[in-house]
Amino acid sequence: MTTNKRIVLASRPQGAVQPENFRIEEAPTSRPGEGEVLVRNEWLSLDPYMRGRMSDAKSYVKGVDIGEVMVGQTVGEVVESAHPGFKPGDKVLTSTGWQQYGVARGKELRMIDASRVPASYYLGILGMPGLTAWFGLFELAKPKAGETVVVSAATGAVGSVVGQLAKAKGCRAVGIAGGPEKCDYAVRELGYDACVDYKAGQLHDDLKAACPKGIDVNFENVGGGVLDTVLRQMNLFGRVTVCGLIAEYNATETYGYKALRSILVNRLRVQGMIVFDWAERYGEALADLGARVATRQLKYRESIVEGLDNAPQGLIDLLAGKNFGKQLVRLQP
Amino acid sequence: MTTNKRIVLASRPQGAVQPENFRIEEAPTSRPGEGEVLVRNEWLSLDPYMRGRMSDAKSYVKGVDIGEVMVGQTVGEVVESAHPGFKPGDKVLTSTGWQQYGVARGKELRMIDASRVPASYYLGILGMPGLTAWFGLFELAKPKAGETVVVSAATGAVGSVVGQLAKAKGCRAVGIAGGPEKCDYAVRELGYDACVDYKAGQLHDDLKAACPKGIDVNFENVGGGVLDTVLRQMNLFGRVTVCGLIAEYNATETYGYKALRSILVNRLRVQGMIVFDWAERYGEALADLGARVATRQLKYRESIVEGLDNAPQGLIDLLAGKNFGKQLVRLQP
Repeated sequence: MTTNKRIVLASRPQGAVQPENFRIEEAPTSRPGEGEVLVRNEWLSLDPYMRGRMSDAKSYVKGVDIGEVMVGQTVGEVVESAHPGFKPGDKVLTSTGWQQYGVARGKELRMIDASRVPASYYLGILGMPGLTAWFGLFELAKPKAGETVVVSAATGAVGSVVGQLAKAKGCRAVGIAGGPEKCDYAVRELGYDACVDYKAGQLHDDLKAACPKGIDVNFENVGGGVLDTVLRQMNLFGRVTVCGLIAEYNATETYGYKALRSILVNRLRVQGMIVFDWAERYGEALADLGARVATRQLKYRESIVEGLDNAPQGLIDLLAGKNFGKQLVRLQP
Repeated sequence: MTTNKRIVLASRPQGAVQPENFRIEEAPTSRPGEGEVLVRNEWLSLDPYMRGRMSDAKSYVKGVDIGEVMVGQTVGEVVESAHPGFKPGDKVLTSTGWQQYGVARGKELRMIDASRVPASYYLGILGMPGLTAWFGLFELAKPKAGETVVVSAATGAVGSVVGQLAKAKGCRAVGIAGGPEKCDYAVRELGYDACVDYKAGQLHDDLKAACPKGIDVNFENVGGGVLDTVLRQMNLFGRVTVCGLIAEYNATETYGYKALRSILVNRLRVQGMIVFDWAERYGEALADLGARVATRQLKYRESIVEGLDNAPQGLIDLLAGKNFGKQLVRLQP
C-alpha cells in the first residue's frame, strides 16, 4: 500500500506563523469507501485565508484542530474510484488539504478540463482567486469606465486579476505592491497604469500622485495602514470591497483604523466578501474568465514551491508578501 | 430699523467647543433685495454636524469662516417680501443661521404648514433629522421583520425616529444611550425593546445580553468605542448605516477602530450617508413621516434652550450628549 505524506497543524501561531506550527506525518493511504474517490494530489494551493484557519478566533468557518491535516485546495488525478461519476485518470479539484493523497466523497470533487489550460489554473485564475476578483469587482464595487480603481496586493493571485479586469472595463488601474520588482511587473506585464511601492515609505504621497482624480474603487486585500491611507483618498460615493486583511492576520496587536470618517463624509459603500456566497453563479464568471484567459487578455503568473515538505515555508513567505503571483506547491516530482 | 442679533464664529475649537469660540454681534436688520425675503426667525435647530462646520477639515461642505454667522436651519415668519411666492405672515424653513432675522432668496426657503403640527417639527421629525432616519434606515440598512436593529444616540433627534420606525417594521429595536434616564425614556416612551447605557462601562456585555441573536442592522450616530463594540457583534450580512460619528467630532486624537475584521468575516455592508443625497425624494418620506406623526405612531420630544444668547451652550451640551430629544433654541420670547 502506498504511503501518504501529510502536514498537520502542530500548534497555533502567536503572531507570525513559524515552521514548528506544522508537523509532517506519514501513514498508509486510505482506500475509498462507497461513494468516495482516492485522489493523488498534484498541486496544492497556498492562500492567505489559511492563516485564519490556524487560529481559533471566529472566522468564516471553524479553524483546523490541532493534529488535523491543514486545509487547502488541490488538483490531482483520480487513482481509485468507488463513485460512478469518476474513474482513474480523471483530473479533479479537491479540498483534501496538505497531503499527497486524499480521499473525498464524490460530491466534494469537481471535474476539471485540463486539455486547454494547465490543471493548476483551477487553483488560481480559473479557481477561487479568479472568482473572488470577478465577483468582488463586478458585483460589489461595480466600477465604471474612467473611474480610478486601486488594488492592494496588486500582483497577488486575486489582485492581478482585479487590476486586469479593471483595465478591461476602461478604468484607471493603480496597484499597491511591495518592492520595485513587483511594481514593475504590475505595470509592464499586468498593464496597471501605475503601481505604488508601499515599502518606499511614502504611500500617501505616492498614491496621491498616482491617483490625481482621487480613488473611486478600492479592492482591499491587505488592510492596516494601507487601507487607512486609501480611505483618506476615496472620492464621493466610492466603493471599497474588503476581500482580505492580510496585514492583520499575523499581527499580535490589532491595527487601529483612523480614517473611518471618510466613510461618512464621502458616503462610501464598504462591503466584506467571501466568494462562496456566489457559488451558484461560478459558471457565469468562469465562462468569462476562461474566454479572457484563452485570448490572452488576462495574464497569469504562478510561483511554485517544490514538494510538500516545503509547503509550510511557502505559506510563511506568502504571508510575508514574498510570493510573486499565485502561490502553489508542486506535490509530485 | 430693527436691530438684528447674531452669533458668529470667533475662533476654531481645539477639541471640545468652548463658549469663547462664539461672539454675539448686533447690527441693523438688512432689507430684502429683489427676489429676497426677510424672515424673523422663531426656532433655531442645533445639530451635531455643526461641530464639523466650525472646523476647517474637509467635510461635506466648506466650513464657516471666522467672523461669519454660524450655519443652521431655522423656522420663522416672513416679515417683508420682495419675492412673489412669499408674503408677510408665511411660515418658512430657512438656512439663515444663528440670528434673529435673516434675509434669504426665495428659492432658499421652503413654505411649511404649521396648521396641523407645531412649526418647530420641521426642524426635527418632519425635517432633516426625521428624513435622515427614514432614508438611512429604509434605503440603506433595509431591515426585515424579526431582525435586530441597534441605534446609538437612541433618544436623539435622529435615533428616536430610527428606533420607532424599526419597531413599526417588526424588528427588535435596541438603543444605546448615555445614562439611566435616557435609557428609561427609550424603552418606556419610544418603545425600544431594550436600551443599553454605555456610561455603565460594560457596553459589550450589556449589548450582548440585549441582542441575544446578534445584530443585523446598526444605525450609527456615535462612532468611537460604541461603533467598535457593535461591529464585533454584527451578524452575517449585517448592514451598518454610518450617519454620524459624534464621538470623533470633539476628540483631539482620532479613535483607532479595531473591529474592521468583522466587515470581512461577516460580509457586512457599511455605508456612509447624508440626507441631501435624497433631496428629490423628500416628499415621499415626509408623507409617510407626517402620517405616522398624525396618528401618534411616532412620538417626539424637544429639548428647548431659551434665547439666542444661550445657543452656544446649547450646542456644547448637545455635543456632550446632555440634550434629551431634538435640540432647539427659542429665538423669540
